[in-house]
Amino acid sequence: MIAVAVVDARSPGNVGTVARSMKNFGFSDLLLVDPPELDPEGEAYGFAGHAREDVLPNAREVTFDYLVENFHTVGFTAITNEDARSHVRFPFRTPAELADSLRDVEADTALVFGREDVGLTNDELARLDEVCAIPASEEYPVLNLGQAATVVLYELRELTVEQTQLPDVDRERADEDEIERLYDQWADLLDATNHPEEKRSKTMRMLRRVFGRAHLTGREAITLTGVVRRARQYAEGDADSG
Amino acid sequence: MIAVAVVDARSPGNVGTVARSMKNFGFSDLLLVDPPELDPEGEAYGFAGHAREDVLPNAREVTFDYLVENFHTVGFTAITNEDARSHVRFPFRTPAELADSLRDVEADTALVFGREDVGLTNDELARLDEVCAIPASEEYPVLNLGQAATVVLYELRELTVEQTQLPDVDRERADEDEIERLYDQWADLLDATNHPEEKRSKTMRMLRRVFGRAHLTGREAITLTGVVRRARQYAEGDADSG
Repeated sequence: MIAVAVVDARSPGNVGTVARSMKNFGFSDLLLVDPPELDPEGEAYGFAGHAREDVLPNAREVTFDYLVENFHTVGFTAITNEDARSHVRFPFRTPAELADSLRDVEADTALVFGREDVGLTNDELARLDEVCAIPASEEYPVLNLGQAATVVLYELRELTVEQTQLPDVDRERADEDEIERLYDQWADLLDATNHPEEKRSKTMRMLRRVFGRAHLTGREAITLTGVVRRARQYAEGDADSG
Repeated sequence: MIAVAVVDARSPGNVGTVARSMKNFGFSDLLLVDPPELDPEGEAYGFAGHAREDVLPNAREVTFDYLVENFHTVGFTAITNEDARSHVRFPFRTPAELADSLRDVEADTALVFGREDVGLTNDELARLDEVCAIPASEEYPVLNLGQAATVVLYELRELTVEQTQLPDVDRERADEDEIERLYDQWADLLDATNHPEEKRSKTMRMLRRVFGRAHLTGREAITLTGVVRRARQYAEGDADSG
């Protein structure tokens, strides 16, 4: 299932536009974090077209924590001038590349869009599994929230069809809790190897970014978790004996 | 030159949204047939983002005849089961197919979008050179005017924009020898942690597969290599003391 999440939207009309695009391209599960009030007589319903009948009234209000804990999360952001070599999250995939990468994957995924004016904050981006950006003009790459969601859902439309038409998936992505166990082991390993305090959160972000892009299968997540746990145990043994 | 024409739009906000998407994807020539009033203090300018500085104020008011007589005209319309039997122009092209077909075209082209509610009339469509439709859900294929223009301009961006703002991932991907050093460290770690002999090559294949999919940057490869090296050193310290 691919859900669409909108974080802290200011304008009900934009929420309605997102809902309409969802219905246009075969998506139905809308999740709202800190939404504006959606008056049935107001702009949200006015902009939603036929999505006023289902997508919009069925939208669920959730927390950002809920998204992170229950979904493979993909954030969207406009390009900044950040150097991709830095550890700051940089938009790595285009929506078209995202469609390719999600094609063989069956796990709950949330496409996360931010505020109209400032998008997702760096703190929010740091907690997501992947970051994507829409290729656009160098001169003015910042799309409106509704336009950004429309382009992304347009590019991903074949997934909503394939999901219902293709029963067999080539690989199955790990459950979110299997992935979280892997990150827990990495955190413990950094601890056991006295990884410099000030670098630890940055390194953890790097690990989340890397494994988020790799779309681990359950088997891979379990094997990796075992390898990292073993390393941590050996490292702790050393700490004990030292 | 590829111009964007909007015929008889009812809502100034939609004209502003179209202008913004034009600037996002590198288009500048906006032609308006029977436009609503575009108050500089109103929704058109409010929705236009930075396009309020150029695309929108430079828009020209023209007649439908002018479009037909001076441009290669491409109309956009939704496909609905009802419409498909009555539409006069077939076959439809998708925006992606249109991008391919326009690549070698020298003539001035106008992308023609219709009214919010009924789109272009059959009489208007009959006078245009080509008709395109955006692939969308069978259940609800009718996009909002602003969303339709956004998808089309997004698909045609390569015709106008030489450079998009996405990082050049290929250039910034880690060198192969940086990646190999990472795999060397993993192999050493498996050794240091007495990973079962018979599973070792399989585990190494899994690691190569996972990191291959993640397309590490140089910085990520170096950081990861450092983390794994440190784990191996701690593990070996244990092996020595045990």
